[in-house]
Amino acid sequence: MFAKILIANRGEIAVRVIRTCKKLGIQTVAIYSEADADSLHVKLADEAHLIGKPRVSESYLNIEKIIEVAKATKAEAIHPGYGLLSENPQFARRCEEEGIVFIGPKADVIAKMGSKIEARKTMETAGVPIVPGIAFPLQDVEEAVKTAEAIGYPIMLKASAGGGGIGMQIVRDEDELRKAFAGNQKRAASFFGDGAMYLEKYIANPRHIEIQLLADKHGNCIYLWERECSIQRRHQKVVEEAPSPFLDEKTRRKMGEAAVKAAKHIGYTNAGTIEFLVDEQKNFYFLEMNTRLQVEHPVTEEITGLDLVEEQLRVAAGEPLRYRQEHIRRDGHAIEVRIYAEDPKTFLPSPGKITVFGLPQGEYVRNETAVQSGMTVTPFYDPMIAKLITKGNDRQEAIKRMLAALENYQIEGIKTNIPMLKEVLSHPAFQAGDTTTNFVEKHLQTTTTK
Amino acid sequence: MFAKILIANRGEIAVRVIRTCKKLGIQTVAIYSEADADSLHVKLADEAHLIGKPRVSESYLNIEKIIEVAKATKAEAIHPGYGLLSENPQFARRCEEEGIVFIGPKADVIAKMGSKIEARKTMETAGVPIVPGIAFPLQDVEEAVKTAEAIGYPIMLKASAGGGGIGMQIVRDEDELRKAFAGNQKRAASFFGDGAMYLEKYIANPRHIEIQLLADKHGNCIYLWERECSIQRRHQKVVEEAPSPFLDEKTRRKMGEAAVKAAKHIGYTNAGTIEFLVDEQKNFYFLEMNTRLQVEHPVTEEITGLDLVEEQLRVAAGEPLRYRQEHIRRDGHAIEVRIYAEDPKTFLPSPGKITVFGLPQGEYVRNETAVQSGMTVTPFYDPMIAKLITKGNDRQEAIKRMLAALENYQIEGIKTNIPMLKEVLSHPAFQAGDTTTNFVEKHLQTTTTK
Repeated sequence: MFAKILIANRGEIAVRVIRTCKKLGIQTVAIYSEADADSLHVKLADEAHLIGKPRVSESYLNIEKIIEVAKATKAEAIHPGYGLLSENPQFARRCEEEGIVFIGPKADVIAKMGSKIEARKTMETAGVPIVPGIAFPLQDVEEAVKTAEAIGYPIMLKASAGGGGIGMQIVRDEDELRKAFAGNQKRAASFFGDGAMYLEKYIANPRHIEIQLLADKHGNCIYLWERECSIQRRHQKVVEEAPSPFLDEKTRRKMGEAAVKAAKHIGYTNAGTIEFLVDEQKNFYFLEMNTRLQVEHPVTEEITGLDLVEEQLRVAAGEPLRYRQEHIRRDGHAIEVRIYAEDPKTFLPSPGKITVFGLPQGEYVRNETAVQSGMTVTPFYDPMIAKLITKGNDRQEAIKRMLAALENYQIEGIKTNIPMLKEVLSHPAFQAGDTTTNFVEKHLQTTTTK
Repeated sequence: MFAKILIANRGEIAVRVIRTCKKLGIQTVAIYSEADADSLHVKLADEAHLIGKPRVSESYLNIEKIIEVAKATKAEAIHPGYGLLSENPQFARRCEEEGIVFIGPKADVIAKMGSKIEARKTMETAGVPIVPGIAFPLQDVEEAVKTAEAIGYPIMLKASAGGGGIGMQIVRDEDELRKAFAGNQKRAASFFGDGAMYLEKYIANPRHIEIQLLADKHGNCIYLWERECSIQRRHQKVVEEAPSPFLDEKTRRKMGEAAVKAAKHIGYTNAGTIEFLVDEQKNFYFLEMNTRLQVEHPVTEEITGLDLVEEQLRVAAGEPLRYRQEHIRRDGHAIEVRIYAEDPKTFLPSPGKITVFGLPQGEYVRNETAVQSGMTVTPFYDPMIAKLITKGNDRQEAIKRMLAALENYQIEGIKTNIPMLKEVLSHPAFQAGDTTTNFVEKHLQTTTTK
């Protein structure tokens, strides 16, 4: 096992990784920007290095600076967390070149899964179901119109380099497609530096269900069940749970096996997630692969008893998996909510000073946060300030615990989405397990969805 | 189920009970003294009533005042927590008389188990092993000497009404016994208003292992495994864990069955605990029965997945147990530490204002506390300010998590026993499971045990 690693991230996930390192006796090196000098990850790590200005491009995305700190501190490996450089193949490659272990898959695997079109082609070859559509960039609007006719409307027009809901549009007929195509292509080119577009059949009332994978460097790969992440606002997850209230055992197994097949096909190593869209008939379609730890990994930890960061570290250090598929437990039900510093009505960020911050506590309540009373939420980074996870013997109990915990959450000085989370969790449709990706638009009263 | 209950307690246990009530949709009535007006239990309850001055005798022990509040607020039941009135048969009887459900066993059962001598006799009749000794008050020092000779020295001289280590003395020969008897009898009479003394064989290097019970009003009783609470300072528990690192399956089952037999024999209802001393050969002897929730109940909740407060409420409301013995899971390993506002070297209380209070968070870390930053620890109440519980797939993992969590505990303004807890958890003898009740005296360097 490593003696010392660098954590190329900030916020709750940096704190999360440090905790497992402490458990395993691994020394930690934190990096931070000028905006984060007083941050919890800086305090908790064994050493911390200032790497630049608040903007991520001048600090947390500065690959050469991070490599330099890793070398100077003799860190043997780098944990990238999620977001930031976690799925940047260039960063993984620079680590490989410098003899530093990147805690993630090989750079070429990241690159392959990072392109939606490339990923889709690869999955098709691996025999994983994909949404009917095309797996190569559309030449022009005429090809788009022709393809859409073959598949049947409605279709989803997508930017290859997009993600998190950005660069996607539902199109219901040829007229709308002709209007949307050029504009979307142009926006994608300016946002992502890549104007490649493709399209897919639009799935009505889908669910977002993802499979957690764990793969070592010895050819072993297992799945740690699914997470349902259908409750989203502006295509960003806000409530996640495991198991899914929708899947049956047969579909669960089929999805798990398809995900393992896909991971093996691409030579995947590390914890990873394959996201699927699941339609009303329980058909599932590959959506994308995330080649890093997910924000919502705690719900999987709660039902399996595993520490996913520990498993990542072990795999990166070359250890074979310690579990076979039949060893993986599935115990109870866990729910996570993401707490954002945002106006619950407009979803706009609400930065500012947090004057009071008191976390709910107790049985089967877990908090993940780097925030403390008196800290300021800056506009430089993601507005997610905390995650709250509850567990129950069944889904009903986990929901009740979550509602009680949200009731006891004390946060003053900024606005948060807690009122919206309470509305979701107490809604009869949510309680009935009727969770589809359009839940927020369909059911919530107090929120404006545009 | 009850619509509304009163919680006749304060601090973390009041907060704990309120949480389960919120989960179950039960309204809560808090009571508080003048010293607790800003307390968390007052804020979290649906309503709160001032009942008197800071001293417990003028507030939390004022039976008639509490009954009055319960009647005025139409509370259907009273949860007594632990300590204070929780094992006061007169309080339970007053509840019975007023038609308020006391969340605990019947008053006469409390009375029977509250007297050490009475309890011992009852257990002997029920066929539960007891420490060799006498089950009736010693007439005088001559009878004490005669009895001690029959049993063999060393013996433990005990005050019938004592508890928590108070009123106990090891005696190694007749000379010592003659010296100790009159003085101890006198002190017991003045401390407890009851000078009754008895004596028992002294067990060398014993462990304190207790069985958690759950018994309903329909004659069903099950055991929820054991907790080992051998790590004590001044006969007060500081570290508790489940399962015990010492028991084998056969002894565990024998102890569980003995405890169930004892509970059935006395017509016990409610959650309850039978404490045993276990010697080096794994013989076990009845120590005492606690007819209420224990401070250390969370470790049992962590390994079984049960909510013991919920089970107490269900039993009190007349529901039959929802589980049979074979349904009770035992999953992983959990450890609790008690955090006291005290000088870690002298064990003397350290009241004062808590200027900084930040709790460790994360996977398999649970906090139970009513303390918040800026609060003052007063000298009126028990100096235990928080409990910290961690869980692991095995004992080693739970210990590592606990050490990391203690490392991340932020508390400033008062002294605490955290340094001592770290020393216990990181000690090779503790890590090897070599936990006996003399652990602190035997192994710790930094603490003075007198």
